[in-house]
Amino acid sequence: MTTQQLVEQIKAKKSFLCIGLDVDLNKIPKHLLDTEDPIFEFNKAIIDATHDLCVSYKPNTAFYEAYGLKGWKALERTINYINEKYPEIFTIADAKRGDIGNTSTMYAKAFFEDLAFDSVTVAPYMGKDSVEPFLAFKNKHTIMLALTSNQGAFDFQTLDVDGKELYKQVLETSKSWQNSENLMYVVGATKAEYFTEIRKIVPNSFLLVPGVGAQGGNLQDVCKYGMNDNIGLLINSSRGIIYAGNDENFAKAAAEKALELQQQMSEVLS
Amino acid sequence: MTTQQLVEQIKAKKSFLCIGLDVDLNKIPKHLLDTEDPIFEFNKAIIDATHDLCVSYKPNTAFYEAYGLKGWKALERTINYINEKYPEIFTIADAKRGDIGNTSTMYAKAFFEDLAFDSVTVAPYMGKDSVEPFLAFKNKHTIMLALTSNQGAFDFQTLDVDGKELYKQVLETSKSWQNSENLMYVVGATKAEYFTEIRKIVPNSFLLVPGVGAQGGNLQDVCKYGMNDNIGLLINSSRGIIYAGNDENFAKAAAEKALELQQQMSEVLS
Repeated sequence: MTTQQLVEQIKAKKSFLCIGLDVDLNKIPKHLLDTEDPIFEFNKAIIDATHDLCVSYKPNTAFYEAYGLKGWKALERTINYINEKYPEIFTIADAKRGDIGNTSTMYAKAFFEDLAFDSVTVAPYMGKDSVEPFLAFKNKHTIMLALTSNQGAFDFQTLDVDGKELYKQVLETSKSWQNSENLMYVVGATKAEYFTEIRKIVPNSFLLVPGVGAQGGNLQDVCKYGMNDNIGLLINSSRGIIYAGNDENFAKAAAEKALELQQQMSEVLS
Repeated sequence: MTTQQLVEQIKAKKSFLCIGLDVDLNKIPKHLLDTEDPIFEFNKAIIDATHDLCVSYKPNTAFYEAYGLKGWKALERTINYINEKYPEIFTIADAKRGDIGNTSTMYAKAFFEDLAFDSVTVAPYMGKDSVEPFLAFKNKHTIMLALTSNQGAFDFQTLDVDGKELYKQVLETSKSWQNSENLMYVVGATKAEYFTEIRKIVPNSFLLVPGVGAQGGNLQDVCKYGMNDNIGLLINSSRGIIYAGNDENFAKAAAEKALELQQQMSEVLS
């Protein structure tokens, strides 16, 4: 998918919502556990109920790997379902991968070719040759961690490197990498004040923003400081939406939570 | 497995060799492609031929994920085979994972419980709460990236943070984390001169060292500067061993390469 197609979808749906599909078998409605593939059945119901309110789905691979082969199979069924039924949706494999060059190429093949995601999240610690293999894929997007929304973000990401926080150095350096136009960045919403600084470094890039709602981030602030002419934001919500209900009406409850966020986004966009 | 059991195995085998099982279907002997599970058949032959020369196997998950369900199944069969047939071997899931707390717990379950690896590699960028969930598992080991062996290591890992390179800050900070005694570190062999400095910060920890041989690192130098009273080193070789041969005698060729390294290690240990 091209960035332009993503922007058009955002304008058509008046939404820049990404829904995180982090499926924990201990948290989904009990009646699904009797089905053959509870993880997929849960996702399918959530997707069918929310696809017109969001522009992106983001399964976090940890939640699938934890269930071994069954989990990987459910991930495969989920991405195939989205790609077949709702091909306009921008899909994100939240995998936070990164390795030496030839190994990163294998990861890129896993997510861009075998599973056919539109994008994958990656970690920056190993530098240029760990990320460029992902960037080489045309019309695929690589979403690199810059400033995350967890407490541990302050352990290293905000350390001072030659008078500049590490995450700023990461943003700056990545702009010189080959095919850097295929980069997006993860920026946590819990620090809305940082968005002004970040936009000075990457004015045109899309930012994937976790941490709105549950983790304390404020949607209006993020939009005020983070939005650009192309919208440039994907706001993620996971648990707040998918676990809104816990009975047979769970998908309806999820859609209601998604609608609340979509309406706030619609206001911001108008 | 306890660290003490690993040390005893090293002394018994006179080897601190780790063999990387990075299986690429384009590189394995052609006759294996006709079998039902070429990845596993390749690994099984390599493992049977080399298990007495090494103390550890390290499948890199990227090479398995790239083949989707088939790949994940082969990874599962490989770790099960090692655990059943050679339980003394220290197994490493080279996955370089890391995410916010509850998500890292899912990754830890995937590798420590579902797949029953002894250890997993993790990335430090997201800080303390992305790594501590792994450290909570008893007699399991978390191998954190410190200084990697690729060119991109110099993009961020060696940047100056308050008068100290970032990788040193990472080593230093991680010592204060809960259950930090379960930490080991990845340190690339291409920079043997760094080991002296690293040993000042983590004198007692095991270091997993890639980059000997193919990537230019020198075994004697690494041992001279990196070894401690408990040996404290696992030297990894992947392609140099597993692709030593390309015909029906590939496992024998791999064993010969492994023996060369084991003999060098035996000399260092005596």
